[in-house]
Amino acid sequence: MSEGSPRSPVVMKFGGSSLATPERVRVVAERIARRHRQGDAVVAVVSAQGDTTDELLARLHELAPDPPAREVDMLLATGEQQSAALVAATLGTFGVSAVSLTGWQAGIVTDPSHRRARIHGIAPERIRRLLAAGHVVVVAGFQGLNDLGDVTTLGRGGSDLTAVALAASLGGTCEIYSDVDGVYTADPRIVPDAHRLETISYDEMMELAALGAQVLQARAVEHAWQHGVEVQARSTFADGPGTKVLAGTGTERIQPVTGTALDRSVARILCERVPDRPGIAAQIFDALAEGPINVDVIVQSPSHEGRTDIAFTVSEEDALPAEEIARAAVARLGGGHVSRDADVAKVSLVGAGMVSRPGVASRVFRTLADEGVNIIAISTSEIKISCLVRREDGQRSLQAVHRAFGLGEGQEEQAE
Amino acid sequence: MSEGSPRSPVVMKFGGSSLATPERVRVVAERIARRHRQGDAVVAVVSAQGDTTDELLARLHELAPDPPAREVDMLLATGEQQSAALVAATLGTFGVSAVSLTGWQAGIVTDPSHRRARIHGIAPERIRRLLAAGHVVVVAGFQGLNDLGDVTTLGRGGSDLTAVALAASLGGTCEIYSDVDGVYTADPRIVPDAHRLETISYDEMMELAALGAQVLQARAVEHAWQHGVEVQARSTFADGPGTKVLAGTGTERIQPVTGTALDRSVARILCERVPDRPGIAAQIFDALAEGPINVDVIVQSPSHEGRTDIAFTVSEEDALPAEEIARAAVARLGGGHVSRDADVAKVSLVGAGMVSRPGVASRVFRTLADEGVNIIAISTSEIKISCLVRREDGQRSLQAVHRAFGLGEGQEEQAE
Repeated sequence: MSEGSPRSPVVMKFGGSSLATPERVRVVAERIARRHRQGDAVVAVVSAQGDTTDELLARLHELAPDPPAREVDMLLATGEQQSAALVAATLGTFGVSAVSLTGWQAGIVTDPSHRRARIHGIAPERIRRLLAAGHVVVVAGFQGLNDLGDVTTLGRGGSDLTAVALAASLGGTCEIYSDVDGVYTADPRIVPDAHRLETISYDEMMELAALGAQVLQARAVEHAWQHGVEVQARSTFADGPGTKVLAGTGTERIQPVTGTALDRSVARILCERVPDRPGIAAQIFDALAEGPINVDVIVQSPSHEGRTDIAFTVSEEDALPAEEIARAAVARLGGGHVSRDADVAKVSLVGAGMVSRPGVASRVFRTLADEGVNIIAISTSEIKISCLVRREDGQRSLQAVHRAFGLGEGQEEQAE
Repeated sequence: MSEGSPRSPVVMKFGGSSLATPERVRVVAERIARRHRQGDAVVAVVSAQGDTTDELLARLHELAPDPPAREVDMLLATGEQQSAALVAATLGTFGVSAVSLTGWQAGIVTDPSHRRARIHGIAPERIRRLLAAGHVVVVAGFQGLNDLGDVTTLGRGGSDLTAVALAASLGGTCEIYSDVDGVYTADPRIVPDAHRLETISYDEMMELAALGAQVLQARAVEHAWQHGVEVQARSTFADGPGTKVLAGTGTERIQPVTGTALDRSVARILCERVPDRPGIAAQIFDALAEGPINVDVIVQSPSHEGRTDIAFTVSEEDALPAEEIARAAVARLGGGHVSRDADVAKVSLVGAGMVSRPGVASRVFRTLADEGVNIIAISTSEIKISCLVRREDGQRSLQAVHRAFGLGEGQEEQAE
């Protein structure tokens, strides 16, 4: 996009953990100030400090167990606004003139929905004017304003989306700073010999992010892909190149699998002995989509005596509403038993190389079978394989597939 | 204004102490809900919870000892926004549909200044629309938006001003709720037999508020007076009529003194041996006004050897900047010694009846003299007498004048 121009702005996004203490806020400000002094036009996007969002939600739920989504957004948006003001003021102590902006002041317009609003557009004039005047602009992430004039939020990890959308709108690049120095072949806390990827393709990164890799938010990667924004995942506390998300690098890899992920925040909803009529699954999943609840791995059993079992996974935080919606839908369809199982984990492998390399799925199944792990359900796409396993088997499963596909530090790809 | 119409809105303002705990937020919501059920159109104005504002300032000052005023406002405004969302969500649990609004969403436009912005105007269309649709509107107090699109705050106690300005704009009445059930002849914690006033005039209330009576903010009372808004000070936690602020009630009183106040948050700045030329005081006080620092009691001593002493009081929080500004001004004028004395307190008597009753001042001086209290400085207006005393003498002085003017519960006015 803008690689040729040395003055195209850089959007630096800092997560809540990078801002959790005054010392860390100073490190973040120092990093922004250094970049500003190098002559870059800098827009910083900040999340709420540390556990602020969870603390605000706890305070709210104590008063209102089922609060209106509009008021949740109104409350949560304050966390990022506080961060933005604190970072802007701290930049002043480094001799850098900085101006904080809320989402709406930054011109971020969203659809009318709350909690998971989508960005409809950005009016970047105010940011452009401030950058042209030599200021660093610090934008409160995670939030926007809808056409009704209500504050909206963009969902967990939404500050990544703010950063990417601003970079797209300003014709700049985007750097996402966090505690880790890039995207790894697996979570290094679980797989010690996991190694950092120099590059990853947009589609691989999207899958990994959606599968629980916490470095980048899936919707942000999708947005970057659509708008050709160069995204880099870097460490707040160390120098280094991090991981670059680029178009089309994945298929050039030698290995079929680029990265792996373990998501232990999933739950399985089981709808047993539902009357088996055409369109039965559609009716259940339409009701869930209206929730709105994202459904992942879906398994429908063969019909038996005119009845069928349908199972699907959702994120743990959606488990309770998903169960209720499914139970109501099943009741409308003529009955059946609906239950919830939180004792599951999802192990996933992602790689654009899978498309051209058959046999990846069978190697996964064989690897898990050799480990004595029972696969509860499977979901595959062109570049992804996810296996649902018992939660106690999750860590061992991840380690096994990571090893089987030669992803370890210095590990050669093993012959089939 | 709107007394005839049973449906003119009521603006109910709740202070930070009334919202300090979840239990208190529930009490506030219950009170608002009750009023709503009685058929009133209710606008609630809320302050930040408990010590939130001070805590935010502490977090900011740890990072930036001298932060830009713009960023201070950006940070502090979040406290009221949180309160508004929490109260609106809690109203939902009482079956009341409520919508929270920030200052700018409520249409509050201020001048460009920060920390102590003045309300320039209110565009109440959104509130009117929400009220007409049957919602309770919960407005974040203390804040507005200036013409540059920046968030501004209205100064300590600014939520009172928000409430009065909204009442004026909507043609409604205003009720200010706090821990105390009205305006007293003195602070009951210091003078146990102080009694609640049924009514007080705007001018008396303004003086008392400016003198440190915490029930109502002086600028809010001034705004109410200018716009003919009926204001009532009531208790959040008890029923009862509170105190009504009305036009012209003061002069009908039998007693010359309506109320008394003790302000222990004052400091005295002493400029010694300043060259005595015409306009010398004006130059010092012009510099302070630009601060902007409100100067209260001013005393200039007779000239001696071509030099003079000028002393004045300021609020304790302004003491340090006031001393610095005065020192710079005095240096420009040719030198002299500037010092700061925080060991002072201000005892004041307010009463519209003073105008027509001579001898009040002399009775104050005699009373304090009989108590052995030394008066450091004096300031008077048509309806007010303030005496600066040593801080250790403050409480005793207040009790003495309260007694001397017959303000105690059931106490008859004493003959001269």
